[in-house]
Amino acid sequence: MKQVTLKPLQVGLLGIGTVGSGVFNVLQRNQGEILRRSGRGIEISMVADLDTARAQAAVGKDVTVVADARAVIANPEIDIVVELIGGYGIARQLVLEAIEAGKHVVTANKALLAVHGTEIFAAAHRKGVMVAFEAAVAGGIPIIKALREGLTANRIEWIAGIINGTTNFILSEMRDKGLDFDVVLKEAQRLGYAEADPTFDIEGVDAAHKAVLMSAIAFGVPVQFDKAYVEGITKLGAQDIRYAEQLGYRIKLLGITKKTAKGIELRVHPSLVPAKRLIANVEGAMNAVMVHGDAVGTTLYYGKGAGSEPTASAVIADLVDITRLHTADAAQRVPHLAFQPDAMSDTPVLAMGDVVTSYYLRLNVADEAGVLASVTGILAALGISIDAVLQREADEVGGEGSTQTDLIILTHDCVEARMNEALAQMQALPTVLAPITRIRKEELV
Amino acid sequence: MKQVTLKPLQVGLLGIGTVGSGVFNVLQRNQGEILRRSGRGIEISMVADLDTARAQAAVGKDVTVVADARAVIANPEIDIVVELIGGYGIARQLVLEAIEAGKHVVTANKALLAVHGTEIFAAAHRKGVMVAFEAAVAGGIPIIKALREGLTANRIEWIAGIINGTTNFILSEMRDKGLDFDVVLKEAQRLGYAEADPTFDIEGVDAAHKAVLMSAIAFGVPVQFDKAYVEGITKLGAQDIRYAEQLGYRIKLLGITKKTAKGIELRVHPSLVPAKRLIANVEGAMNAVMVHGDAVGTTLYYGKGAGSEPTASAVIADLVDITRLHTADAAQRVPHLAFQPDAMSDTPVLAMGDVVTSYYLRLNVADEAGVLASVTGILAALGISIDAVLQREADEVGGEGSTQTDLIILTHDCVEARMNEALAQMQALPTVLAPITRIRKEELV
Repeated sequence: MKQVTLKPLQVGLLGIGTVGSGVFNVLQRNQGEILRRSGRGIEISMVADLDTARAQAAVGKDVTVVADARAVIANPEIDIVVELIGGYGIARQLVLEAIEAGKHVVTANKALLAVHGTEIFAAAHRKGVMVAFEAAVAGGIPIIKALREGLTANRIEWIAGIINGTTNFILSEMRDKGLDFDVVLKEAQRLGYAEADPTFDIEGVDAAHKAVLMSAIAFGVPVQFDKAYVEGITKLGAQDIRYAEQLGYRIKLLGITKKTAKGIELRVHPSLVPAKRLIANVEGAMNAVMVHGDAVGTTLYYGKGAGSEPTASAVIADLVDITRLHTADAAQRVPHLAFQPDAMSDTPVLAMGDVVTSYYLRLNVADEAGVLASVTGILAALGISIDAVLQREADEVGGEGSTQTDLIILTHDCVEARMNEALAQMQALPTVLAPITRIRKEELV
Repeated sequence: MKQVTLKPLQVGLLGIGTVGSGVFNVLQRNQGEILRRSGRGIEISMVADLDTARAQAAVGKDVTVVADARAVIANPEIDIVVELIGGYGIARQLVLEAIEAGKHVVTANKALLAVHGTEIFAAAHRKGVMVAFEAAVAGGIPIIKALREGLTANRIEWIAGIINGTTNFILSEMRDKGLDFDVVLKEAQRLGYAEADPTFDIEGVDAAHKAVLMSAIAFGVPVQFDKAYVEGITKLGAQDIRYAEQLGYRIKLLGITKKTAKGIELRVHPSLVPAKRLIANVEGAMNAVMVHGDAVGTTLYYGKGAGSEPTASAVIADLVDITRLHTADAAQRVPHLAFQPDAMSDTPVLAMGDVVTSYYLRLNVADEAGVLASVTGILAALGISIDAVLQREADEVGGEGSTQTDLIILTHDCVEARMNEALAQMQALPTVLAPITRIRKEELV
């Protein structure tokens, strides 16, 4: 028997800003289509927002609007609480209270889950409720579903993603227009692609939150944001983007997690990527995630990683999943972190010094004989082999009559600690005139 | 309580060729990982294959091998039947019998479902069993899951996909090496990318099977392979690929389905695609599907569309989904075609003459005054506006002293029936010396 006649599931929104309005509008606009799929209605019947007047205007008079989020949680009519407040503070408290009240929770809050996920998922498991978070990673792209369900046959070997639209927009603009970081950041702020305080985006923290969640799901380990290596894009120069291009690479801020024999790599930093890879051609504020599984090989998922309706698309997909599964035996549901809670692994996250990758180095050096020999001598002595060298004419770099030039080196794989040692030795050379730029390089095969 | 101690679900394979061995091998290799995710074991305990000796060698002595597929279906121990025989004939009969016997079915057989899906899904609905077919479209890419679950909040507006690896390999090689179709086809056959009888691939039939399935899922309409427009790549010349490149486009065989005010477009044909689109850069035997939803915008899914283990990855994902859902209320499961069986739409599929798109035309014409005027005059009289014209020097096309040349025209959107009329009139011009080449063009925004 069909269940179309069942009472619609009642949803309470905590916070109705950009994403909350998107959820409300898309649910209204597409309610017929969604009901035809899910077989059961989904209704937002209550909204909590400090700005009650704006909230009431957004949802109309048929929806109860309150200032106090706890009134939503306390309402026995509400089946699902959607947390769209953000941040680690009050959001954590409210999510835990909603779980204790037996509500299912949908959230787009990657920061909260990357830091407090262990506590939250354990509480949800005890209460037999679901905490769904498709919207927390890569916006509208159904990447959590792909990882937890679509690729479930695979040992995931690595994931590499452009998972922050702000930084990808900035890097795309820097490359397209040959501009420096500061100039493009201002433009991004003017266009609304970057926030007034852009720190979380440009320093890689937002990407790291998402990488932490994907790492946990891929490898069956706890969320452990404190173990992630995080480096942003603020120190990238326009010349590095140009040199990379000449060598056949593009620079992207990647969130990377990889399973190796020694442990799990979990890192966010700018990376050279071969220009011919699909992911190197992801431009503007778009997101894309590559996932490599042992059976499926390399797959890629691309789309809008932020914005009102793309994020709402993911939130509503979670709501529909919950309408299907809320009556099912809790043990049959997809586990929050893809692996059964009693089958999690304690594989350690590697320190950055233990990560093996290849490198792009840019050295500003004196334009004199023997410089290349001394630099490459240091690398050779440490067993770091060179893939390519690009030596610029001094005139091109410093102008007519310049006595300094840029030396660009691409290395093969080596362990990061050894590269750090090489960098220290090279930096100490009197012919190396400025701090060396080091950018990691990923072939993604 | 966890259910790890439950008896593993018992699976019977019908056919153990390339995909069947992949399923067996991946399930064996990753059984620990899969169990950690699913919480319940999945065991292949019976295999039917006409070549019993080869089958027994593939699966080892612990698995029962039989020649008669009906022995698998009749075995009350078997919970799930995996049909990997292919084709419309015996496969249809066996799938229907397995359903009647109350088994869940997993199949990679797109031909079967595109032609007989209505009958098969109705039978499954009556018996309360699942027919899962992630492997039927785009191999290891979880596109069925993305469409049915990940994007469930959206009105899907259109889908465009490279969903046949053989033809994408051939087109990539033609472009890379400037070779003609026949030469590359032979190479593809030698490398195993094309079958001895490549008709289904190169004529677009395989891509059409997959497009039909995606169309049904996206728009909630029945599978209707007989309504699809199907055109392959056999008539493409190396010069069209070259001219397209000069105009900023690449030629891909696309499976397209689109919802318009008049009905549903459902078509497979070679298409010019802007070279800067991600999908234009999908090379070799890889697959990619673009999906445009009203909330999420454009998303893209990329990966291996065929092969033993990529296809096995999708089959096993379906098996795990079934282990989770087989005890659930059937009404709570994701419907076979995404929409509830009583909520399907009867939106008609448009005849190709009613499709609106833009065009690339190549006319081999006499190199004399007035030719361009008479050709563009015909287009203008029919209200077809021109986007770009590329006129080659006669020497470049026909060699020194040639009296004929190529005239390439890109048009804006017009309805196909009108373009057919224009083509008939242009073809009748005495200055048009050879059959006109017409390739459709998709901007994919």
